[in-house]
Amino acid sequence: MEQITIKEVAKLCGVGVSTVSRAINNHPDINDATKQLVMETIRKYNYVPNNSARNLKRSDSHTVAVLIKGITNPFFSAMIQVFEREVSGRKYSFVLQHVEEFEDEVDVALRLEKEKRLKGIVFLGGLSSRTEQKLQQLTVPYVISTVDSDYGGETAMVAVDNERESKRMVEYLISCGHEKIALLASTKDDASIGMLRHSGYRAALEQGGRKYDEELVMWTEAAGKEIYSMENGYALTKKLLDSGKEFTCIYAISDSMAIGACKALFDAGKRVPEDYSVAGFDGLELAAYYEPSITTMRQPRREMAEASIGLLFDLIEEKEVERRRIFEAELVEGRSTKRLA
Amino acid sequence: MEQITIKEVAKLCGVGVSTVSRAINNHPDINDATKQLVMETIRKYNYVPNNSARNLKRSDSHTVAVLIKGITNPFFSAMIQVFEREVSGRKYSFVLQHVEEFEDEVDVALRLEKEKRLKGIVFLGGLSSRTEQKLQQLTVPYVISTVDSDYGGETAMVAVDNERESKRMVEYLISCGHEKIALLASTKDDASIGMLRHSGYRAALEQGGRKYDEELVMWTEAAGKEIYSMENGYALTKKLLDSGKEFTCIYAISDSMAIGACKALFDAGKRVPEDYSVAGFDGLELAAYYEPSITTMRQPRREMAEASIGLLFDLIEEKEVERRRIFEAELVEGRSTKRLA
Repeated sequence: MEQITIKEVAKLCGVGVSTVSRAINNHPDINDATKQLVMETIRKYNYVPNNSARNLKRSDSHTVAVLIKGITNPFFSAMIQVFEREVSGRKYSFVLQHVEEFEDEVDVALRLEKEKRLKGIVFLGGLSSRTEQKLQQLTVPYVISTVDSDYGGETAMVAVDNERESKRMVEYLISCGHEKIALLASTKDDASIGMLRHSGYRAALEQGGRKYDEELVMWTEAAGKEIYSMENGYALTKKLLDSGKEFTCIYAISDSMAIGACKALFDAGKRVPEDYSVAGFDGLELAAYYEPSITTMRQPRREMAEASIGLLFDLIEEKEVERRRIFEAELVEGRSTKRLA
Repeated sequence: MEQITIKEVAKLCGVGVSTVSRAINNHPDINDATKQLVMETIRKYNYVPNNSARNLKRSDSHTVAVLIKGITNPFFSAMIQVFEREVSGRKYSFVLQHVEEFEDEVDVALRLEKEKRLKGIVFLGGLSSRTEQKLQQLTVPYVISTVDSDYGGETAMVAVDNERESKRMVEYLISCGHEKIALLASTKDDASIGMLRHSGYRAALEQGGRKYDEELVMWTEAAGKEIYSMENGYALTKKLLDSGKEFTCIYAISDSMAIGACKALFDAGKRVPEDYSVAGFDGLELAAYYEPSITTMRQPRREMAEASIGLLFDLIEEKEVERRRIFEAELVEGRSTKRLA
């Protein structure tokens, strides 16, 4: 079904587009009768206000921004290159904005939107479901990339199903005979992919008839540090070893953490996988070059980056498209895990 | 000595600033007598036209750009974060522009300068000495970061002395008893840091009384691929092994290439360092987490990134400062190299 534009809604109601916008955005400066008329027209003609209202404020800047939390994370590096290429290919310019760990990316986006008169935004990493309400303040289209929290049906999103893929990884480790699988996890208050990967871990254990043992979950203590880093994987594994808890396998929620885990095991005189199996998540190039190569869940990063920009431009051009794009991850068996006899 | 501004030069000559600018930039649209007067005044008052002429076209955009060649190179990731932080801290906005391998970064800079009305530019990686002439077309201050080609005294630059540090690494390897040291090199026509690191390698061998053997230099064949990558290090090492040439040590001009080299050796059933020593360059975090840890020449990346932005803002503010800032690299002995008996 062809969608009508905001201009057509305005014409049908006999009002200006700014009035339609005010109605959509619950602006106080509009009378109830007009608001009701606009909203009824919107419903009647299947107009999707979310996107087109955002286009109201489009300027001629021809700039889109990618906001990134965790710019040092190698997971994002190859994606940035694709973003830049895809944006340039559409004759737009590209702004990369780093968001500090402690910053709220929606605040940053709102500021940037004004300063740069952006046409669209991709949020890369970071965002949690708690910011959904705030996202509504943005007036340009946006796509949430690599984070699959449930933002509601209207929110544009490109990601793998982090909970499902994490569950698949742990099911694989269980199938290799591992019972006591330690988890290198995010922070306890994480409301983003760290939480989803933890849920997948727990679900696989419980549905596989194994015990979920909170003591084998190594939570990252403080937010503010780089959770998905080699350094953090190293520190958490050292703590795990020091705890004296028994385990045969470490599942880290990122490949970088898995590499940190391997190094901590090596430094403690242990071998991988002879003494302990180690698995990661993401499918970094590095996971393949590490010795031993890391068993991981490969996210199709380049394809996801292309899809993010594709979707953003679909929204900018007011196309009616599927707004939730879930990619499949691929289980890559490295030499860092072994089957128990 | 206090420098005078372009406005003062204009006043002294009784002309407008745009006339001074035309004189400086060899613009055809200025008569010879006026031009001579301007140039004499400039010399007399020790005016440095390079920088201040660039400031002529400063707009109110408050934006600086970092142009980066090789955005997937992990060497740059941590630097980008520092750039962004340093720029934001000065209440400027930050544009990160990726430059494709085949693109000329000065062309990209000239386009961006116009589009974004930039106040300054940092070139990160890539640039070779062949572009010096072209750089003169830029009208805003710029700093060349991490590349220490000889651009002439006026060009602002932050880097390590790549030739000297590369020479130091090879001197260290020679001191460990290695005679036949293979080099994983850049392309033969490289005119940037790849060439400098090759020169350092050659100088160390020749000054150390060792033979420089062209057959032990594994040049990267085609430009356009990611020279400094694990993938390239892997491919070059495979080729080296296939060549049947004798060697006891591989020196790769980047840590990522060194890791690729280790992986190729492992895949061929060899051990590091028992069978072959491997050394890199850069001092990536990854080099420390690899097993074995990689012997490398650590560049102080964060400090260099801070210095690059500091210098750029000094130039934007027309401060008279030292324009060439050379940092020391640090030799980090990993477990990937051994002393021969």
